[in-house]
Amino acid sequence: MSDRAGFATRLDSWRARVERQLAQRLDQHDPAVARLDEAMRYSTLGGGKRLRPVLVYVTGSALGAAPEALDAAAIAVEMIHVYSLVHDDLPAMDDDDLRRGRPTCHKAFDEGTAVLVGDALQALAFEVLAGNAHTAMAPAARLQQIQVLAQGIGTAGMAGGQAIDLESVGRKLDAGTLRDMHARKTGALIRASVLLGAIGAGVQEGADYEALGRFGAELGLAFQIQDDVLDVAGETGALGKTAGADAARGKPTYPSVHGLQRSIELARAHHDAAIAALGSLAGRAPDLLALADMVVDRNH
Amino acid sequence: MSDRAGFATRLDSWRARVERQLAQRLDQHDPAVARLDEAMRYSTLGGGKRLRPVLVYVTGSALGAAPEALDAAAIAVEMIHVYSLVHDDLPAMDDDDLRRGRPTCHKAFDEGTAVLVGDALQALAFEVLAGNAHTAMAPAARLQQIQVLAQGIGTAGMAGGQAIDLESVGRKLDAGTLRDMHARKTGALIRASVLLGAIGAGVQEGADYEALGRFGAELGLAFQIQDDVLDVAGETGALGKTAGADAARGKPTYPSVHGLQRSIELARAHHDAAIAALGSLAGRAPDLLALADMVVDRNH
Repeated sequence: MSDRAGFATRLDSWRARVERQLAQRLDQHDPAVARLDEAMRYSTLGGGKRLRPVLVYVTGSALGAAPEALDAAAIAVEMIHVYSLVHDDLPAMDDDDLRRGRPTCHKAFDEGTAVLVGDALQALAFEVLAGNAHTAMAPAARLQQIQVLAQGIGTAGMAGGQAIDLESVGRKLDAGTLRDMHARKTGALIRASVLLGAIGAGVQEGADYEALGRFGAELGLAFQIQDDVLDVAGETGALGKTAGADAARGKPTYPSVHGLQRSIELARAHHDAAIAALGSLAGRAPDLLALADMVVDRNH
Repeated sequence: MSDRAGFATRLDSWRARVERQLAQRLDQHDPAVARLDEAMRYSTLGGGKRLRPVLVYVTGSALGAAPEALDAAAIAVEMIHVYSLVHDDLPAMDDDDLRRGRPTCHKAFDEGTAVLVGDALQALAFEVLAGNAHTAMAPAARLQQIQVLAQGIGTAGMAGGQAIDLESVGRKLDAGTLRDMHARKTGALIRASVLLGAIGAGVQEGADYEALGRFGAELGLAFQIQDDVLDVAGETGALGKTAGADAARGKPTYPSVHGLQRSIELARAHHDAAIAALGSLAGRAPDLLALADMVVDRNH
């Protein structure tokens, strides 16, 4: 289980599973809303690192869950992630033209449709979680997944982080506020993904649950700092989105506040804190270590 | 129970309860996201007919639920309704400046914040439902409420109706498509509100549940047709939003497709169908009849 070659194969297989599950769920063909359905598929399918659903699968299966018990949570977190990208790309938010190497949803369709794509994907994520009919998932566990996800994406989490982001354009943030923004904007959903996997395996509280929550939060920070670093040091082609966009927009980022070199060190420090949080779980979940390495070693 | 004077008192009392519950839930005071919190309170508190939460309370208490068991569902459906108004008012959608007699959210705050207000209210609605800790609500019933709500607001419901609406501007819709648009855009959430009340009372399937679903769907159509009628025949002051806005925007409405007189008749016909659907429940839930009358007799 701990060899890295095996990890790459398992990663590919989880990603293929996510893709299949998403395609199946979005294959609706309701003629009255054909354009909305198409825009939802366009935004969701055929791209992305799928980090969040992979975290659901890797965490849950390390703790003994069958993949079938994890499918609903995996696609739900990815639907939420995609909805957030579609809304963040809107002209009133980041005003981005390029995402995953293709025109953003509001460019390929229109702005009103992009608003609805996000709205409908959020609703679908909760519908999928509530409807998870796998026998291993007791109603109370499904409710807990819904609560953890909802808390991770509300004002205390993703939407709150985006609000801080909106207000911070052109301003100088102190290091604490910047960290809080990243923790909410990115960390909260990554943490929720890990916890949804744990709950899917019946781990709903206790030391392992707490450790995984800390792991997810630290990993989420490492991920977002690495995103900031790549926005400065990366290339548009590899990123699939516009390099240098944050700086051009006057957005506070880790490099703008801490400098590039220190930001690279901080990404690594949060990676290390994530690993440390796992404690004895690291031995049982080696693929979480490999995922954590991937987050800070990636170039896109 | 069946006197109409008593109904007015009970209606006021349900509305006050909704207001109190919403204010309590939105009283968050998280300094990092103060502006978003304020925009959520601005959009949610101090206005509105509160029809959907009142339907939750009236349906649920007619079937024997304690109000405390219904609070979560009541504020959840209103949060969803408010989120839909905030997003529908956006420049990329209906581009409205006035709502409930005040500037719309994106006018009073900004467009990005309005997107986030809707996103965060949707998440909060599901968080509230999942977290409903009333002892009468078994986990399976809470899950069913989440499913019913999510289905009512996704592509098969509210978001789908809004997508048809977006595409229909400047076009002529046939009567069937117009009806489908209204059934999704407005009917689906009103139907969900009635069903959430029923589930809150432990009525999760069977003849009463089916009858209430039909009642809600017909009432929702009657409500939206009456809205169309008031957009033509009403006054901006009484409406709290701009009269004549649909026609100015080239939107297909019941009056534009069926004429004003026939639209008034159709609203009444769906009202009657709603009452008929109730069958023997009408005797046990007289306030549902009073609410149905209110929907077609209102002038705002």
